[in-house]
Amino acid sequence: MTPEQEKEKEEKGEQEEQVLVLDAMKRYRNGEIWDFEDDMAVSDGHGGGENGVLLGLDGGTTSTVCICLPMVPSFSHSQLQSLPILARAVAGCSNHNSVGEIAARETLEQVMADALSKCGSKRSSVRAVCLAVSGVNHPTDQQRILNWLRDIFPSHVKLYVRNDAVAALASGTMGRLHGCVLIAGTGTIAYGFTEDGKEARAAGAGPVLGDWGSGYGIAAQALTAVVKAHDGRGPSTRLTNSILQALGLSSAEELIGWTYADPSWARIAALVPLVVSCAEAGDEVANKILLESVQELASSVKAVVERLGLSGQDGKDAFPLVMVGGVLEANRRWDIGKEVVNCISKYFPRVLPIRPKVEPAVGAAWLAWNFFMKECYS
Amino acid sequence: MTPEQEKEKEEKGEQEEQVLVLDAMKRYRNGEIWDFEDDMAVSDGHGGGENGVLLGLDGGTTSTVCICLPMVPSFSHSQLQSLPILARAVAGCSNHNSVGEIAARETLEQVMADALSKCGSKRSSVRAVCLAVSGVNHPTDQQRILNWLRDIFPSHVKLYVRNDAVAALASGTMGRLHGCVLIAGTGTIAYGFTEDGKEARAAGAGPVLGDWGSGYGIAAQALTAVVKAHDGRGPSTRLTNSILQALGLSSAEELIGWTYADPSWARIAALVPLVVSCAEAGDEVANKILLESVQELASSVKAVVERLGLSGQDGKDAFPLVMVGGVLEANRRWDIGKEVVNCISKYFPRVLPIRPKVEPAVGAAWLAWNFFMKECYS
Repeated sequence: MTPEQEKEKEEKGEQEEQVLVLDAMKRYRNGEIWDFEDDMAVSDGHGGGENGVLLGLDGGTTSTVCICLPMVPSFSHSQLQSLPILARAVAGCSNHNSVGEIAARETLEQVMADALSKCGSKRSSVRAVCLAVSGVNHPTDQQRILNWLRDIFPSHVKLYVRNDAVAALASGTMGRLHGCVLIAGTGTIAYGFTEDGKEARAAGAGPVLGDWGSGYGIAAQALTAVVKAHDGRGPSTRLTNSILQALGLSSAEELIGWTYADPSWARIAALVPLVVSCAEAGDEVANKILLESVQELASSVKAVVERLGLSGQDGKDAFPLVMVGGVLEANRRWDIGKEVVNCISKYFPRVLPIRPKVEPAVGAAWLAWNFFMKECYS
Repeated sequence: MTPEQEKEKEEKGEQEEQVLVLDAMKRYRNGEIWDFEDDMAVSDGHGGGENGVLLGLDGGTTSTVCICLPMVPSFSHSQLQSLPILARAVAGCSNHNSVGEIAARETLEQVMADALSKCGSKRSSVRAVCLAVSGVNHPTDQQRILNWLRDIFPSHVKLYVRNDAVAALASGTMGRLHGCVLIAGTGTIAYGFTEDGKEARAAGAGPVLGDWGSGYGIAAQALTAVVKAHDGRGPSTRLTNSILQALGLSSAEELIGWTYADPSWARIAALVPLVVSCAEAGDEVANKILLESVQELASSVKAVVERLGLSGQDGKDAFPLVMVGGVLEANRRWDIGKEVVNCISKYFPRVLPIRPKVEPAVGAAWLAWNFFMKECYS
């Protein structure tokens, strides 16, 4: 390439870049995301009927789901389950800690637009939005997100911003913020609410800070058991063959390189089914790891229930315990979730374990219904 | 800037870059590192006297130390301690896994040149080099380093490449490869050797794979205890105030952000003295953490000693246990190293604990003496 060609290419590149930036600004500022609304006939603008619609969002670190439900104020709380899902849209990560605020905001805005567009609704027909996103831990996070949600929706739309654990709870309680939710996937957290608005959490501090009941925690202990058996510091275990074979490694020493080659917690947590299989095959080391994880998970729930007094003064009140996440859902003979419930029942005999039949985003939409009804009809 | 100026600047930049690359190549290929040798009078070329000198290197992830000793073949093994240190040079990281092979090689070459230059010796007066570097775990690592050491030194120079744990052992055994070394700083490893050349190791697999006796392990458990106390999952502990105050944090919740803001293991391990202080002040949680770390460290030593049969068939042979690293050196009332020895003595009553008075690089130089004597005079 001659210097002239190079210069030309450079200038063209700059122009293209400017166009992209302008596109993004236009799309963002002038709402290309919402252009579909202009193409809708006025009569089509109420996909949810005259009462409008509700949006529920579950925003996590891997994906974001938006659910659109019709608003039916005449429904009682127990009828919520029969509300039809008008639309469902999916997008990527919307945790502002992971991708930054601008990207998180655009993902959330896009997924809401997609859901509304799918069911032929406009923003003006939205009655309430419940946005449950991971990374919302402080009132300041909440307020920041509320501020830009306010820019998107007309002023009559009710807006609620919460942590994503809240959506998981609501998916099991039909949108009621009461009880405890235990999430155990790659990570783990227990989150609880009283009917008068108090809340408490336990765990959720990541692997360095002792989330040993999580999928990562279980798998890391299994890897440790393999290294200890190899060193002569621990008993031999089926986990060695099982894990080395699954990872295509020929010796326990190679586990060190495998472990530190990639910092992803999910990659390590993916070994949990192997640990369960070894435990089912009678391996004592694997069994001990699972039993300890059960104790850890139960202790998180116990801490939340006790702090909030969810089981009443005599410890005998009923309260829902919603259980969510791969570690608890595993439909296996060695059932971690079942063991956690057994363990918790000893302390709180009237615990009501619930495994939600709907996804957390539906829980968020139910929450929006509940919040809206409380605010507007009570 | 006009496009012409821009082009000129770009071309100038390219030229400068080429000069830098050529400089680096020249320095490396043509040995600018070793230019000092040309300025030395012939008679000055034997800083160690007519018998020449020895080089011992301890290459770690934070720094690299090179020690130059005189070669005195008439010395007996027990006289090694009286060999004077002719020169000491220090450089940065030389772990090829951390900084790459080219940078590691240049660091090692430079630190050897610095040490020789300081005592007025040339490469031709070197009799033996013992390079003990972290990251050398397989014979292939060893061979690769040997190959380029061979390019630097004349063919009569004896070269030995080992893992850095070996230098730590040798610093306590006067260069004899016999016994066990326990290192516990940020990380931990136990390494052992028999007189007939067998070796074994335990731990050293990093925090994910269960090095719970390490400084990182102790501190991570202390942080976990603070989070658990805050959640209501564990007993309250002095560690909370002690750690939050030291880190300038106002609540246990802020620990999560602090922990994941920086992935450095050393930053977390630096909290160990606070744990020891809390244990000394009678805190039960801190005490339990330290007692468990003692058990972990002792179990690493026990595994190595048993695999190598260091304590003989009846378990009553004497063997040296060299103890190195901040966790074991802490000269405190709660003495982790002393407790480890107490624990090991129950299994192996004739264990001979040694806390080296010299640094590992001196151990590496003593190893060079031993290897050389064995190869050339036996």
